[in-house]
Amino acid sequence: MLRARGGWQALRRCASLPRARRAVRLRVREALGALEPADAVQVQGWVRSVRSQKEVLFLHINDGSSLENLQVVADPSLENRDLTFGSAVEVQGKLVKSPHKMQNMELKAETIRVVGPCDTWSFPLKMKERHPLEYVRQFPHLRCRNNTLGSLLRIRSEATAAIHSFFQDNGYVHIHTPIITSNDCEGAGELFQIETSNEARESAEKTHFFNVPAFLTVSGQLHLEVMSGAFTHVFTFGPTFRAENSQSRRHLAEFYMVEAELSFTESLQDIMQVMEDLFKTATSTVLSKCPCDVELFHKYIAPAQKTKGRLEQMLKNKFVTISYSEAVEILRQASQTFTFKPEWGCDLQTEHEKYLVKHCGEVPVFVINYPYDLKPFYMRDNEDGPQHTVAAVDLLVPGIGELCGGSLREERLPFLESRLQRLGLADAYQWYLDLRKFGSVPHGGFGMGFERYLQYILGVDNIKDVIPFPRFSHSCLL
Amino acid sequence: MLRARGGWQALRRCASLPRARRAVRLRVREALGALEPADAVQVQGWVRSVRSQKEVLFLHINDGSSLENLQVVADPSLENRDLTFGSAVEVQGKLVKSPHKMQNMELKAETIRVVGPCDTWSFPLKMKERHPLEYVRQFPHLRCRNNTLGSLLRIRSEATAAIHSFFQDNGYVHIHTPIITSNDCEGAGELFQIETSNEARESAEKTHFFNVPAFLTVSGQLHLEVMSGAFTHVFTFGPTFRAENSQSRRHLAEFYMVEAELSFTESLQDIMQVMEDLFKTATSTVLSKCPCDVELFHKYIAPAQKTKGRLEQMLKNKFVTISYSEAVEILRQASQTFTFKPEWGCDLQTEHEKYLVKHCGEVPVFVINYPYDLKPFYMRDNEDGPQHTVAAVDLLVPGIGELCGGSLREERLPFLESRLQRLGLADAYQWYLDLRKFGSVPHGGFGMGFERYLQYILGVDNIKDVIPFPRFSHSCLL
Repeated sequence: MLRARGGWQALRRCASLPRARRAVRLRVREALGALEPADAVQVQGWVRSVRSQKEVLFLHINDGSSLENLQVVADPSLENRDLTFGSAVEVQGKLVKSPHKMQNMELKAETIRVVGPCDTWSFPLKMKERHPLEYVRQFPHLRCRNNTLGSLLRIRSEATAAIHSFFQDNGYVHIHTPIITSNDCEGAGELFQIETSNEARESAEKTHFFNVPAFLTVSGQLHLEVMSGAFTHVFTFGPTFRAENSQSRRHLAEFYMVEAELSFTESLQDIMQVMEDLFKTATSTVLSKCPCDVELFHKYIAPAQKTKGRLEQMLKNKFVTISYSEAVEILRQASQTFTFKPEWGCDLQTEHEKYLVKHCGEVPVFVINYPYDLKPFYMRDNEDGPQHTVAAVDLLVPGIGELCGGSLREERLPFLESRLQRLGLADAYQWYLDLRKFGSVPHGGFGMGFERYLQYILGVDNIKDVIPFPRFSHSCLL
Repeated sequence: MLRARGGWQALRRCASLPRARRAVRLRVREALGALEPADAVQVQGWVRSVRSQKEVLFLHINDGSSLENLQVVADPSLENRDLTFGSAVEVQGKLVKSPHKMQNMELKAETIRVVGPCDTWSFPLKMKERHPLEYVRQFPHLRCRNNTLGSLLRIRSEATAAIHSFFQDNGYVHIHTPIITSNDCEGAGELFQIETSNEARESAEKTHFFNVPAFLTVSGQLHLEVMSGAFTHVFTFGPTFRAENSQSRRHLAEFYMVEAELSFTESLQDIMQVMEDLFKTATSTVLSKCPCDVELFHKYIAPAQKTKGRLEQMLKNKFVTISYSEAVEILRQASQTFTFKPEWGCDLQTEHEKYLVKHCGEVPVFVINYPYDLKPFYMRDNEDGPQHTVAAVDLLVPGIGELCGGSLREERLPFLESRLQRLGLADAYQWYLDLRKFGSVPHGGFGMGFERYLQYILGVDNIKDVIPFPRFSHSCLL
């Protein structure tokens, strides 16, 4: 709240004034970052450790504003039996320079009030224990009070803000594309269908709430294309859905996607430049805003991957670009044997993607110009041959494989019309053809899976560990 | 893109250098706002008007970056038959001071390239016509090229950004609460149920994809409460769903909600302060960022309401607060007869809300402390009597009625436990009770309907006109 800011101003004022009557409320992050000592400060949070010595009582308290705890130093007379790990407290006292070099400031307590006690016996998190991600995943309503999940969610929040800012700073209009839609975009992937609960109960005789079958969106792309024909640059950042096997470590039924469309874009390189800029801007923002949170992941969750050095390396260098045809050549000449034999005209499998990334030096790799027959109808025909391709691009990253996909869109009415007719889709996409009749311009766009992005920058193996709630594992919290 | 910024820098550099070889690409907004003339500028956009005179050809072009068009002045020799209303063009030339006082700059064209012609005969939008909202609603894929919808979507984008910034600036962590959930939050409103498309087809024998029935979220509140127990201040801003009659002018099946939860909050006034701050900050940001877009609405869409003066008045004054009991007294003493007789213990109807707002001087009004029996289980018991209330608040605004709702949440285990037991919900909400065992603190929160907020600040009557796609009226674009 504004109180936090007001707090700071009040604190500065305090320094030169006689002792303030009322304590200034500070978040832990603010207290830790204070430049000067201050009297009459109040901090609230949850106890992360209690250490009672003969002469002094030490508490560590955390309020979620940072990974670091604030050390509270108190007279042992302030101890009480409710003051345990997990309890909520309100501490008033003086903010002083800490004698320890690990921390800048500490709070000398004058009063400690236990606001909410904690039943430590049944509390599944234990003091100073590093619980594995698999363990805390069992407690979706409590795991956010674990360090790792705390860091994850602060990073997720900062990355979200960084993505919004990137687009806003560059003149994009944010569009909320529909979640409920009758459109399946690419015809790819299993859809979730929507009914009212009544319909689901009386499913024998179906009348649809929306008169037609309605689904959860798999992509906002086509809706964004509509908007790019008016605003030139548009983006969306919201939930998308696939009814794929949700037990995998790589897939979620519900995940977030960043999508952008750009008009007056004649080259695939322009799209790739935006993908790379977005990726790098978001990553450097996260690294600079949450250094300790990121470090926790790189030190304890994915130490083998030396993720930190990798990110800094990645930020310095231009991403590599190879064509699909070159990729297939590289795979055919590989000494490794693949489960799926690499051949021109076939999809790249995860094993192929991982090999290509390794071959290029464990850096992000753009693969461009995919076979015409592999890709959906809206991708722009390169009019080449005999190996016929479209202007599509995938961005592959180490450890993950495909992270982003994009293309130029077919803006030429005759090309699109004949392709849709061959697919028997011309009637369903009449509105999409319409867009090509009224000031159609070269355009393109891309999508980036937000959870995979987080997995990549943090080195997290299971995609369920980068979402706020590990859905479908705890029925009450679905 | 970064190109836009690069464009500016390049432009500044140009001023003191010999004529640049390559044209600098500018958005219309940048061209209109340029401080100095510049050679070799390129602007792309869609033609909004063509006026051909004997000596000179005038074009107005728009690229969605602003409501205002850029005037292009060209030699009549540059005219061609594809250069019509709705066509897409790329114009190169010199940016010069305009002799007209209505605009700062205009573009003296050296070349005009028609990138995409427009079939004006079948294009449903016509040059210089002010199409009513009802008319353009029929063309969901084209209506964004209409001035009104252009302004609406720029405002919606800026308001979204302002809301995100408000929370970020005040130390809130952004949480993506689940869209698919087994939780119906208040048990209020009709839910949408989710199946895989296969299940929908073979609905005779049901096995659920998620093992349990799954629904579209009606509110992220309970999930946010979990998170406020770790991060103190959290917010979410995403789609929510109600399977209510979508033909109404007031309801949508899919709408956006801003929700926030705050821990260590002992007073309802603290929640109301955040509601008021959010409301005012977002509104002043929109007014300062899109003055022309807002003016269009206040001049042509809702002129009778004198919305502009009303907003400025609203921003200056503190919101009024009355209790529910006072509200009922005011209604009982009203000379007006209501369809629903106002009585203590009954819900306030829209007619009541509108009267109260009028009674208080057509300003936003907080109504606090509602009857215990009217409100959901999670609201905090005020322990008063004989008129037993909870610490709930609704914010009513002129022309709309209820815009926000909030409350303190019951943080005391015994109160919550006995209430859930009486309702037979104790088993289903075991996890929610759990939260009260491990460092429970006084907390509260609120939600604000984003579309109703837009309706209020713009004076738009039909809620379908403040969303990007008028869903369910055009099956292909659902």
